[in-house]
Amino acid sequence: MKYTDRGVEDIKIAYIGGGSRGWAWKLMSDLASSEDISGRVDLYDIDYDAAQNNEAIGNKFNGVEGARSTWNYKARKSIGEALSGADFVVISILPASFDEMESDVHAPEKYGIYQPVGDTTGPGGIIRGLRTIPMMEVIAKAIESYCPNAWVINYTNPMALCIRALYDSFPKIKAFGCCHEVFNTQTLIAKAISEATGEKAVDRSCIKTKVVGVNHFTWITDAKYRDLDVMKIYDEFANRYYDSGVEKADPSSYFECAHRVKFDLYRRYGAIAAAGDRHLAEFCDGSLYLKNDEQIKKWGFVRTPVSYRKRDLADRMEKSKRLREGREELKIEESGEEGVRQIRALLGLGDLITNVNLPNVGQISNLPLGVVVETNAAFRDDSVEPVFAGDLPEGVWQLVSRAADAQTMVARAGRERDLELAFKAFVNDPLVNLDLKSARELFCEMVDNTKEYLKEYIK
Amino acid sequence: MKYTDRGVEDIKIAYIGGGSRGWAWKLMSDLASSEDISGRVDLYDIDYDAAQNNEAIGNKFNGVEGARSTWNYKARKSIGEALSGADFVVISILPASFDEMESDVHAPEKYGIYQPVGDTTGPGGIIRGLRTIPMMEVIAKAIESYCPNAWVINYTNPMALCIRALYDSFPKIKAFGCCHEVFNTQTLIAKAISEATGEKAVDRSCIKTKVVGVNHFTWITDAKYRDLDVMKIYDEFANRYYDSGVEKADPSSYFECAHRVKFDLYRRYGAIAAAGDRHLAEFCDGSLYLKNDEQIKKWGFVRTPVSYRKRDLADRMEKSKRLREGREELKIEESGEEGVRQIRALLGLGDLITNVNLPNVGQISNLPLGVVVETNAAFRDDSVEPVFAGDLPEGVWQLVSRAADAQTMVARAGRERDLELAFKAFVNDPLVNLDLKSARELFCEMVDNTKEYLKEYIK
Amino acid sequence: MKYTDRGVEDIKIAYIGGGSRGWAWKLMSDLASSEDISGRVDLYDIDYDAAQNNEAIGNKFNGVEGARSTWNYKARKSIGEALSGADFVVISILPASFDEMESDVHAPEKYGIYQPVGDTTGPGGIIRGLRTIPMMEVIAKAIESYCPNAWVINYTNPMALCIRALYDSFPKIKAFGCCHEVFNTQTLIAKAISEATGEKAVDRSCIKTKVVGVNHFTWITDAKYRDLDVMKIYDEFANRYYDSGVEKADPSSYFECAHRVKFDLYRRYGAIAAAGDRHLAEFCDGSLYLKNDEQIKKWGFVRTPVSYRKRDLADRMEKSKRLREGREELKIEESGEEGVRQIRALLGLGDLITNVNLPNVGQISNLPLGVVVETNAAFRDDSVEPVFAGDLPEGVWQLVSRAADAQTMVARAGRERDLELAFKAFVNDPLVNLDLKSARELFCEMVDNTKEYLKEYIK
Amino acid sequence: MKYTDRGVEDIKIAYIGGGSRGWAWKLMSDLASSEDISGRVDLYDIDYDAAQNNEAIGNKFNGVEGARSTWNYKARKSIGEALSGADFVVISILPASFDEMESDVHAPEKYGIYQPVGDTTGPGGIIRGLRTIPMMEVIAKAIESYCPNAWVINYTNPMALCIRALYDSFPKIKAFGCCHEVFNTQTLIAKAISEATGEKAVDRSCIKTKVVGVNHFTWITDAKYRDLDVMKIYDEFANRYYDSGVEKADPSSYFECAHRVKFDLYRRYGAIAAAGDRHLAEFCDGSLYLKNDEQIKKWGFVRTPVSYRKRDLADRMEKSKRLREGREELKIEESGEEGVRQIRALLGLGDLITNVNLPNVGQISNLPLGVVVETNAAFRDDSVEPVFAGDLPEGVWQLVSRAADAQTMVARAGRERDLELAFKAFVNDPLVNLDLKSARELFCEMVDNTKEYLKEYIK
Repeated sequence: MKYTDRGVEDIKIAYIGGGSRGWAWKLMSDLASSEDISGRVDLYDIDYDAAQNNEAIGNKFNGVEGARSTWNYKARKSIGEALSGADFVVISILPASFDEMESDVHAPEKYGIYQPVGDTTGPGGIIRGLRTIPMMEVIAKAIESYCPNAWVINYTNPMALCIRALYDSFPKIKAFGCCHEVFNTQTLIAKAISEATGEKAVDRSCIKTKVVGVNHFTWITDAKYRDLDVMKIYDEFANRYYDSGVEKADPSSYFECAHRVKFDLYRRYGAIAAAGDRHLAEFCDGSLYLKNDEQIKKWGFVRTPVSYRKRDLADRMEKSKRLREGREELKIEESGEEGVRQIRALLGLGDLITNVNLPNVGQISNLPLGVVVETNAAFRDDSVEPVFAGDLPEGVWQLVSRAADAQTMVARAGRERDLELAFKAFVNDPLVNLDLKSARELFCEMVDNTKEYLKEYIK
Repeated sequence: MKYTDRGVEDIKIAYIGGGSRGWAWKLMSDLASSEDISGRVDLYDIDYDAAQNNEAIGNKFNGVEGARSTWNYKARKSIGEALSGADFVVISILPASFDEMESDVHAPEKYGIYQPVGDTTGPGGIIRGLRTIPMMEVIAKAIESYCPNAWVINYTNPMALCIRALYDSFPKIKAFGCCHEVFNTQTLIAKAISEATGEKAVDRSCIKTKVVGVNHFTWITDAKYRDLDVMKIYDEFANRYYDSGVEKADPSSYFECAHRVKFDLYRRYGAIAAAGDRHLAEFCDGSLYLKNDEQIKKWGFVRTPVSYRKRDLADRMEKSKRLREGREELKIEESGEEGVRQIRALLGLGDLITNVNLPNVGQISNLPLGVVVETNAAFRDDSVEPVFAGDLPEGVWQLVSRAADAQTMVARAGRERDLELAFKAFVNDPLVNLDLKSARELFCEMVDNTKEYLKEYIK
Repeated sequence: MKYTDRGVEDIKIAYIGGGSRGWAWKLMSDLASSEDISGRVDLYDIDYDAAQNNEAIGNKFNGVEGARSTWNYKARKSIGEALSGADFVVISILPASFDEMESDVHAPEKYGIYQPVGDTTGPGGIIRGLRTIPMMEVIAKAIESYCPNAWVINYTNPMALCIRALYDSFPKIKAFGCCHEVFNTQTLIAKAISEATGEKAVDRSCIKTKVVGVNHFTWITDAKYRDLDVMKIYDEFANRYYDSGVEKADPSSYFECAHRVKFDLYRRYGAIAAAGDRHLAEFCDGSLYLKNDEQIKKWGFVRTPVSYRKRDLADRMEKSKRLREGREELKIEESGEEGVRQIRALLGLGDLITNVNLPNVGQISNLPLGVVVETNAAFRDDSVEPVFAGDLPEGVWQLVSRAADAQTMVARAGRERDLELAFKAFVNDPLVNLDLKSARELFCEMVDNTKEYLKEYIK
Repeated sequence: MKYTDRGVEDIKIAYIGGGSRGWAWKLMSDLASSEDISGRVDLYDIDYDAAQNNEAIGNKFNGVEGARSTWNYKARKSIGEALSGADFVVISILPASFDEMESDVHAPEKYGIYQPVGDTTGPGGIIRGLRTIPMMEVIAKAIESYCPNAWVINYTNPMALCIRALYDSFPKIKAFGCCHEVFNTQTLIAKAISEATGEKAVDRSCIKTKVVGVNHFTWITDAKYRDLDVMKIYDEFANRYYDSGVEKADPSSYFECAHRVKFDLYRRYGAIAAAGDRHLAEFCDGSLYLKNDEQIKKWGFVRTPVSYRKRDLADRMEKSKRLREGREELKIEESGEEGVRQIRALLGLGDLITNVNLPNVGQISNLPLGVVVETNAAFRDDSVEPVFAGDLPEGVWQLVSRAADAQTMVARAGRERDLELAFKAFVNDPLVNLDLKSARELFCEMVDNTKEYLKEYIK
């Protein structure tokens, strides 16, 4: 790195999972539009062709209209080459393939367990966690060897377990996890403010929210916009749309929701659950929102079938080809992600306060130390320090502590390659209200379905 | 009080709920058989006749064979008279009548909610708590006025909420709560040891157990008998009887259980749940053990109908008359309760380590301060100090933290006479997996059924 | 308040101690130079004439070159009028007069106790604290009555005791304390960086420091400037100037120091003590830096005689007259204080991370809750939340915990008007290594000297 | 071990430092007088002859009048032989020789630093700690290898550092530390009670004390005897003897004190410092009680010269010979130590509550976790669990936290063989109010004097 009057040059970013068809392009666009930083991005992916494709696409970005800085992209054959000398590491991988995810999400259905996402918690999230933890250990150890002082930004799910595995493997790692679910909720709140005030374009970044919880089960317990008490505005909004839900922009979307679960949780707990309803429902007792597809439909969200993810991937692979070959135009657009803003703050180019996932060192007073939690943090030159968030409020605490305890159990099960401990977490999950025998059957089946990635667990 | 070479004389005990037909007689028997303490017992009860009956019975005990000390019993018309100058206060009341309990236990049935006891947690425990808290406040304030330095022993349920209300109302109160559920579990463990070693009469008090949790949902996480690891012995025992359950002494009993729930929890969590199955099941998700009577039967326990309690009360009232009139003989028998042993330790007549209910000052590291928890404590001269119990283990923590959070919410709802907050706890209870509308209906009905005792809540 | 496209209008600031000749003028200048905020400032002072003088001076500022916003100043006869409807409250008072301070600072000299400042800790700080706490209670109660939602910025010393008294009296107060000692240390660090890099004007606000401690005994344990490890730069700097000290800009100043104490503390503890040496020395054992004037001189700082403060006040009173009468020109200059930046952040006009004094809610993990500590905090729209600072490092912890414990004792002594407890803190102070008899004599003399302001303590 | 109806047979105790001329004989006597336990004691000492001597003496005890059980003593040439199969391990060693202790105690005198004991804290305690920690590591590792489940009782000083090193080296060790200083203070309190009540022989074990602090700087904050508030009795006693001190049984003793330091601390802090004045003074600022021999004399205690210890050792070696050869008679007398009572409790032969040294797991709320503290603990079958002691009181907290921080620094310096860190603790010690240069000189001299035992530190 080199500091100049105009900013910082010669930054090196390593991108693990750099063959990504989606996230990677957003990062490229955000980097290109930042005028005060420049450097290079080394792409590593177990699919080297995909990384090479992105090398080509990334380098094209330098010529796109609106590009204000130059970044050199290079696909690397080994993780060591990619990480050597890195100032920043981005981790965004798919743990195994969508075939494994198919088992995670759909195998439990025959036991009456329906998961809209299946990548965070529930039976699917637990099994996914088990196979992801060893991958994160490999990455953490490589970071320790090649670039121990780099800042590490993770986007991979299950977020909390990934961050926890990174710290477990290399305790001095400077890693944090980013997720846009809170941002999306801020956008919903912006809509509520618009409706209340008549103001048209309320910028979500001007809404100051107090954030507390675990990833995908984060809660906003206080919020301000100008001199307005946003909690009161939200209260009216949640009641107004409690029955109807908020209309979706794209009714056929497999990701959007009508926010009815969010409003129901608001009525139950008095705080704003800050993630998509598909995620939120997975942390609650299965009988509340996920009993069957009828109930799911009633609450205004959908389950994302893995078959859709497979089709979508095929589409994105096509798009990747078109972008590389110039048959589709590259555009520089703000992604809505905060990765580049965070990088700039870590370089000393402007302080930033935003929510991220970090091990609990006390920022949430009533969760155990070590649990990976999501709260606001202060990003400054070479430093990310959590903002003190205090206690989870009554009621919410018992929900989140349940998730935190499960996280601890699965993290240890992963670290110790211990399927019996994983089963304890499994049988204790709010979606798994099965007797021990049925729970055991399902667990064994899911392990068996994905056994190629769980070899170290099976003795 | 007066210390002599032989012990302590002129002790004054005040008994709130002193018309009791059961507990009171056990205490009388235990006092009579203690040779180194003597004094008087003032009985206060809202049913003055019942207190007078016990005055007569109590005084008869002085003449029973085996009596080794003299205690003078006196019924008092006012709580102030009973408490004035007391060294010890025993609280053992029935909050309201069995009519209210009938609503607590049975009103939720039409919503598919079945409670074997209904006095601790669940819809019944919450409503019972709401009406009990104001009563405890009155008692605490009276203690503050009449005998602020007395030691206060509570036996009333919901235990944890009672202790919490006592401390909330008079923070310097020297109160603790006693319950025999852990003792009963120690007796079960004694049976397991007998089976394993062939030793005949294993004394439960020689089994040293580490106790941690909240009342009626307490856990034994470590136990020793001589040089034997009791946890291993219990493991075999639980597996041996997992399917069949342990035979009940009295198959028609409304209180005994086959311990199958206990064994199932042991398999799920690896710790010994230390209460009767009827209580344990109420703290777990309703679908696990309490879905319907068929499932309950399968797990080897029963629900105690309030109609039985009414019949039983009538029987005990008859017995009371017979005892008073000498038509039934009084006997001095060890009750199995520890109240008198505790009193002796508090007088400096021998240290004692046993489990009691106290506000958490840190004895359980991973529960919030202030929650009333059950752990071992050291009883010494004028002092009860909890033994450090550390963390609730993984898995168990999330179950108990749920109960602890509910306790906090109901305690505050009671203190602030806030039905809306009580409803939050209600809808969050593991037995109440209802949508908000149904939950509200049930809550309102139960409040209405018992409204005579909830006047201060209804504005 | 009124939000517009240009910022916020109609802000009301109440200034308690608004007759100030110094601080008040800095605030006026900073307000005048802020283009996006405007409103009025109500001045309250027990010296109403002084407030009126400042009313005149303040209103003149609107016409000074460089003024970018308009503020209306008004002297008020009652604190209630000043506070009514305030959005912000500034507290900057002199507790009693310099006569009392003369006793605080100089009475202990005959016992060999020399205090360079005498307003924070040591015998002088303790006695000053005792008379200030009741004043803060009055102010806090008035804020509770007249403007409970206002943000309260305190500049009065003893800072920590003032903040603590504000929160003790009105627990929901939104108060924090500001002090420029850390800023001055950052300026010293900027000098170190300049020397190391050759860069000329290093801006202190670009140095990102981790701040932890109590006011006037704050420590920087980590610091970054660009990609430079400032701790290493400081290490060289401290060693280079260890013997000589850093040359003072004004050798005759009663406030500057050569930073030799700071460098000695750095060698002893490995962290940067972040306050002037006059303050730092008062928190250390008296024999280290304050044995006598010779030793003080050797360490390169001076004691500030109260006679100087009296002369200086007379000068400022003259200046005040000149300013009011137009005989001296008003200038708009950046004060270096952060009050107005904080106000803007609290209005939602840009997030800010800076160090302030707040009750410990856990931001310093190894100090008791409730102690007023100084760490970084995140200022956002209507919110000040501490940034998690973790543990005080080994060695430093024992120094700061001593100060924290003293703070707790004096705060309680003040709250309970308990001179005996105050004496316990007094005799335990690192500057008071006296036998009990001598300590008692000195304490009584100092109380007697200032008894006009301690009437509520003397029973 | 073998449990029978009469108690426990075949117990194996390993005694590290088994050549001891003093402690060992007390243990032998206490074991001999216990009727319900028997077995063997393996003696290991770097001085094998001394161990053999004790083997002979120990076996003679079986024939002494009053012996109620049989113990076989055997000197062992290797620590492994001694530890193999041990149920209990006693550690009581002299780290290095009295020559090293001579440097510890007397080298600092030329800097005006006077230490009455010099084995716990202060310059002497720190240097002693540095050479002891590696010895404890060796012992801990041997215990891990040969008898990981044994209970380990340490009597070696510096107590807290020894216990900490044992746990640092083998975290699952079941070790605690015993010291009689609190017992001696209880005996002083017994005297106070006798004077107040006229009762003649008050048994210290009937006084129930709340104990909190670190070894040799422990405090009694609450105490009861029968229904008497002992704190009030002590208050009168301390004031009565404040000036005169309590008469010593043996005015020429190098160990007794007049308790004037204890009474002065009581007046300063309101709690009973529970150790001999020689120890207490070493934890306080040097100028208070240890400025010079005149001041020491005034306060009624003496410094124990190491020359005396050398003479005394020679006497005890003679005595050892006489005992072995039958020229001096062995006697069975109660030692006043609690080791054997603790062993019996750990075997399940009666619960015991007494004070011991253990790592802080939360028993003292306002000291860091991991610091070795002294509080009451519950001894039961195979379990020692601290009794919750809560916060150190105001005032006392800052004194003890200073000692706790020093402990942490020296423990880490020892573990990491880091003299620079040790120097940080050294220069921060309350007895070392020296400038950095003098402190460095003294430190280097003391390290050099004892360098034979600090080889691993000197690189």
